[in-house]
Amino acid sequence: MTTPSIDSARLWTSLTEVSRYGATPAGGLNRLAASIFDGQARDYVVAAATEIGCTVRIDPLGNTFLRREGTDHKAKAILIGSHLDSQPLGGKYDGIYGVMAGLELLQSLQTSNSVTTHPIEVVVWTNEEGARFSPAMMGAAYFAGKFSAEELHSRTDVEGVTLGESLRAINYLGSDFVSPDQFASYFEIHIEQGPILEREGIDIGVVTAVQGMRWFRVQLSGQSGHSGTYPMEGRRDALAAAAQIVSGVQTIGLAQPEIGRATVGHLLVTPNSPNVVPGNVELMVELRHPEVLALNTMTDELHALLKTVESRTGVVIEVKQELDSATIHFTPELIDIVEASATASGMSSTRMISGAGHDACQIAGLMPLTMIFIPCVDGISHAENEDITQVWAANGAQVLVEAVLQVDSHLK
Amino acid sequence: MTTPSIDSARLWTSLTEVSRYGATPAGGLNRLAASIFDGQARDYVVAAATEIGCTVRIDPLGNTFLRREGTDHKAKAILIGSHLDSQPLGGKYDGIYGVMAGLELLQSLQTSNSVTTHPIEVVVWTNEEGARFSPAMMGAAYFAGKFSAEELHSRTDVEGVTLGESLRAINYLGSDFVSPDQFASYFEIHIEQGPILEREGIDIGVVTAVQGMRWFRVQLSGQSGHSGTYPMEGRRDALAAAAQIVSGVQTIGLAQPEIGRATVGHLLVTPNSPNVVPGNVELMVELRHPEVLALNTMTDELHALLKTVESRTGVVIEVKQELDSATIHFTPELIDIVEASATASGMSSTRMISGAGHDACQIAGLMPLTMIFIPCVDGISHAENEDITQVWAANGAQVLVEAVLQVDSHLK
Repeated sequence: MTTPSIDSARLWTSLTEVSRYGATPAGGLNRLAASIFDGQARDYVVAAATEIGCTVRIDPLGNTFLRREGTDHKAKAILIGSHLDSQPLGGKYDGIYGVMAGLELLQSLQTSNSVTTHPIEVVVWTNEEGARFSPAMMGAAYFAGKFSAEELHSRTDVEGVTLGESLRAINYLGSDFVSPDQFASYFEIHIEQGPILEREGIDIGVVTAVQGMRWFRVQLSGQSGHSGTYPMEGRRDALAAAAQIVSGVQTIGLAQPEIGRATVGHLLVTPNSPNVVPGNVELMVELRHPEVLALNTMTDELHALLKTVESRTGVVIEVKQELDSATIHFTPELIDIVEASATASGMSSTRMISGAGHDACQIAGLMPLTMIFIPCVDGISHAENEDITQVWAANGAQVLVEAVLQVDSHLK
Repeated sequence: MTTPSIDSARLWTSLTEVSRYGATPAGGLNRLAASIFDGQARDYVVAAATEIGCTVRIDPLGNTFLRREGTDHKAKAILIGSHLDSQPLGGKYDGIYGVMAGLELLQSLQTSNSVTTHPIEVVVWTNEEGARFSPAMMGAAYFAGKFSAEELHSRTDVEGVTLGESLRAINYLGSDFVSPDQFASYFEIHIEQGPILEREGIDIGVVTAVQGMRWFRVQLSGQSGHSGTYPMEGRRDALAAAAQIVSGVQTIGLAQPEIGRATVGHLLVTPNSPNVVPGNVELMVELRHPEVLALNTMTDELHALLKTVESRTGVVIEVKQELDSATIHFTPELIDIVEASATASGMSSTRMISGAGHDACQIAGLMPLTMIFIPCVDGISHAENEDITQVWAANGAQVLVEAVLQVDSHLK
């Protein structure tokens, strides 16, 4: 069968329309997981899929599966997944593009009356960002059997609201049983979130792996006091100590040129009053590197840094590793298929590693899988000015259709 | 007339009982201005004062005046003031001790059937801390005519709740007209909030001045982005830049040994997510020094620091001075009276400068005034482990009674 052409205008309209839910004045998105806006965005996608005859399944974590049947009723489905939630001040494409490209795949197959052997199923994963409920990639982790629904339902946001009640409020607390053994393979398409594709003028990133990442929660306990009376000389100022950690973490990242990443993205001061010497600070250190030995070196450097700051300042420092995500390698056969699909679609491509984690990381080991990247402007993401072009969006969706149909015809 | 002895046990009971309202598990106070707990603490003090026949006046800012009449109905009152609000994680004595010592003064005069020529009036100022509503020392500033009630009523806390509605909710939105020309002089008694009195074993601090202070709000605007993909080399990380400012501010303070203070007590990161390079940071820098020339030097150093960090990091830095409080000198005659009162009460004393600002700073220029300090443990305040002893509390209250009666008999 001939690969149908995707409808670039339709895809762009979908992306534009779904961006209304949680839009920020600066052109970004504030669409936290299981918020009202998340519910509205899901409703939009579900309505579009049911309009073309897809069936909908919602599991207890709110993961939403949109299914277009194939001719072989015994065949496992080919799964395409991404997410609709954003960071508190995030962009309109991180995650969202993957869902809308999946929807466009379903629409293109439908309007071209294409027939596949395998069912094609698009999944909207719940809470990929982890910005409201911890951990990140939660829906996909649940699907992978890493947590029970009860355990995750009881997780709370900063206001004490549980995930369970939030999902119920937006009507996405489902009861469908969906498990990995119902699926034959997994694709995820995403913006690069880095500068390489745009800078080099390449249409498609063929993703071979996701780099490893570790999160460390650091608690600093000093002594608070009145800023006008507490002498500088005797202070145990938790924020002054934290400042040394922030600077040191940057040095650790810069020591791994181009590839390593070291970030303090989260920092809270207590009591956070202008005329009180800060007694406590909590911060999160994130280290990333595709090679485990380098990641170990960075981890050692972090522990040494914390010890140095503690002995220099007298501020007590406790550290707890909260995440250790190994480098994930994708399936060689699917990587080859994506590369061939780009060529077959007349597009340039390059193999690359993902710097960011994705829902795909949770699916690794459960079924063959890979990812596809499209360029984004200036490599910016997790920011309101995250941007892509209509052409980039269409190119990616076309390669996705091509790759899915190749898998459909190759799979036994 | 003989100076009545204060009742040490009664004072300590008052201090203990009033600490219940907003008590924290760690033994401190979280009693923000115009909160429910603030209302409860005021109710406690008002009930105790009315029980001994005092009259109560409440002005539109909630400043609460407790009046014991004198024999001369044309005489202006002697005013004793302090506050009942605390920092978010503050202690049980900063401000509170001053109010309870004032209450003990009224109670001692009453139980000893003492007669004064002038009315004696104790005022509970609203929102000294400025932790919930800006600015600090708000009630006293209103009394001094620096703001209109309408303007201050519309000030909001971080949740968007106004001061006006908060005062109304706790029944302290008054309508009594109270003005500085109704008063002859002003006393404020407070814990030292510094280590000198305890370290040197001195009972009473005779306060001669309050050191000057300046607040600067600093906004840093960098570029947020995904922490896994945004290369270290091109980052404009607002928190990394802020860390350099925090460290630099500490250096500015340490360059003024023992006397100068330089603090970053407040810092907020946006979006504050572990896997997002921080795009924006807001922080407050506070500089204090009793000498204006040294304060000018510190200010110049701050501006130079901000310029250096901006050019080094590419993060755009904006600074706005929000407070410029000059060094306040108290009234020589009243300073002498406090010193003589300590001696007459059999207590040791030393003259000292206040590192912290107080409501008294707002009263300066309106009437003769001074302050009295008592020791506190380890110089700690604005912290839950702020502490004093019953003896220190009683010593201060006794000197206050002596000084007020001396003023009463000397005033024409």
